[in-house]
Amino acid sequence: MRTYAEYQQLVEGALSAQLASLGEIPALLFEAMDYSLSAGGKRLRPVLLLAACDTLGGDVNEALPFACALEMIHTYSLIHDDLPAMDNDDLRRGRPTNHKVYGEGMAILAGDGLLSAAAELVLRAAVCMGDLRGTKAAEAILRRAGVTGMVAGQVMDVTGEGTEPTAEKVAYIHLHKTADLLTAPIEAGLILAGATDEQVSAGCEYGKRLGLAFQMVDDLLDVEGETAVLGKTTGKDAAVGKLTWVAVHGIEKTRQDAREQVRLAVEALKSLPGETNFLKTLAQSTLNRVQ
Amino acid sequence: MRTYAEYQQLVEGALSAQLASLGEIPALLFEAMDYSLSAGGKRLRPVLLLAACDTLGGDVNEALPFACALEMIHTYSLIHDDLPAMDNDDLRRGRPTNHKVYGEGMAILAGDGLLSAAAELVLRAAVCMGDLRGTKAAEAILRRAGVTGMVAGQVMDVTGEGTEPTAEKVAYIHLHKTADLLTAPIEAGLILAGATDEQVSAGCEYGKRLGLAFQMVDDLLDVEGETAVLGKTTGKDAAVGKLTWVAVHGIEKTRQDAREQVRLAVEALKSLPGETNFLKTLAQSTLNRVQ
Repeated sequence: MRTYAEYQQLVEGALSAQLASLGEIPALLFEAMDYSLSAGGKRLRPVLLLAACDTLGGDVNEALPFACALEMIHTYSLIHDDLPAMDNDDLRRGRPTNHKVYGEGMAILAGDGLLSAAAELVLRAAVCMGDLRGTKAAEAILRRAGVTGMVAGQVMDVTGEGTEPTAEKVAYIHLHKTADLLTAPIEAGLILAGATDEQVSAGCEYGKRLGLAFQMVDDLLDVEGETAVLGKTTGKDAAVGKLTWVAVHGIEKTRQDAREQVRLAVEALKSLPGETNFLKTLAQSTLNRVQ
Repeated sequence: MRTYAEYQQLVEGALSAQLASLGEIPALLFEAMDYSLSAGGKRLRPVLLLAACDTLGGDVNEALPFACALEMIHTYSLIHDDLPAMDNDDLRRGRPTNHKVYGEGMAILAGDGLLSAAAELVLRAAVCMGDLRGTKAAEAILRRAGVTGMVAGQVMDVTGEGTEPTAEKVAYIHLHKTADLLTAPIEAGLILAGATDEQVSAGCEYGKRLGLAFQMVDDLLDVEGETAVLGKTTGKDAAVGKLTWVAVHGIEKTRQDAREQVRLAVEALKSLPGETNFLKTLAQSTLNRVQ
């Protein structure tokens, strides 16, 4: 097992190269995709994938295209999410959003391109692997990112804006918009490492709990954080009537619930063999953001 | 081998069901995706995939998810293409465009959803097949639809608008925006049928030539056609300064070039075994649209 920084460095060093490896991409398209892809961030999703794979003794280098693909999917969702027709955000990770720099048309295409590139990357890797592990890992990623996963969550988020906040609606949005894309790397990473179905299930439970905790903390930060620290506009959720955990349950209950989700995430790790300390510490550190 | 109408019917009967088979999709998202997916059209891309598979004696039912995925990709590209930030079209296949009915935000998500659903469908099918044919076919589809294929062509189309039309630019746009997505079904269909690399190459040459002829005819129709017949706004290419074959080469040369591409498409079929008459007739019928 490596440290978070080491996994993160592996991903940082590979993202642009993986994209470029797909072939002759029009210069402006590559630039627009790479602008958002190289904007930094914690690289949580790809790090989770590499760590999950490593936990069971899988080949981290073999898993790298899958890790990069997840960051591409995350990035495409942010680009489209920031568009005027959606959240209409000008700032992301401390820099102007994609459409502010490249225009709306190109931002839509950069998002389409990143999603396509992600699918192409994992499929190319799957073909090279020679068995069906890669195909199964790719299926998990695209399913969790798709119309029963992240896109479904995004739809409910957009259409829910300004409607009455209910526990059910917020749980659906958190589960699909956020937790599905944090479960995908665990599921895919374990599959690549040759995990059994039971191990994959335990990993998915961990990912789901981690994802819910992560989004609860994010909701808290939007209320309590500062724009300068987070690199994005804060206090916006309430202003536009977003359905957040805080809006339904209040700040104190949200803190409690986040702690409980982390406890459940750590609990799920007990069904996984190997060196699970990394994943345990990572789940616990989620809470540090709002201590 | 079946008739065009029979392949088309197979696709029509499966499209919505394949989408629904992915699981619990939010009702409004499903409706928005299905609105454009069920809007009719010739279903050329999925028909090509089934026919290519059938030509070499492959299993048409096994190929059906791949065929439907291609139509989903084609549909997503139309939805995003029609957006105000892109071509800003109000009419498609004789009906209001997706964003006119569901709003821009939902149209962007419906497009994202259809691309995701396409990738998920082919991956699920590939996992079920048990060998790597499905993975390879899926890779061909996503590669041709991606940042070195259809998305690349779309970028050059959008950024080329209003610039000086050159033969090189127009050839690039036609090759990637149109021909790549007509080559994908041939490539994938043949791979699913267990074709050799040489056979796949010959099929790709056919698809490329067919695609170029198809787009040349489309350019001609935009100049000569009537809105009522085509179900979309005509004369718009010239009005917004689109880079078309006609703009560079003129009407008469475009007709000649289209005929030559069809001849080359038919020529390429000679390297394919099996019953190639269907693909031959289909290529030739492209020209009938502008006789």
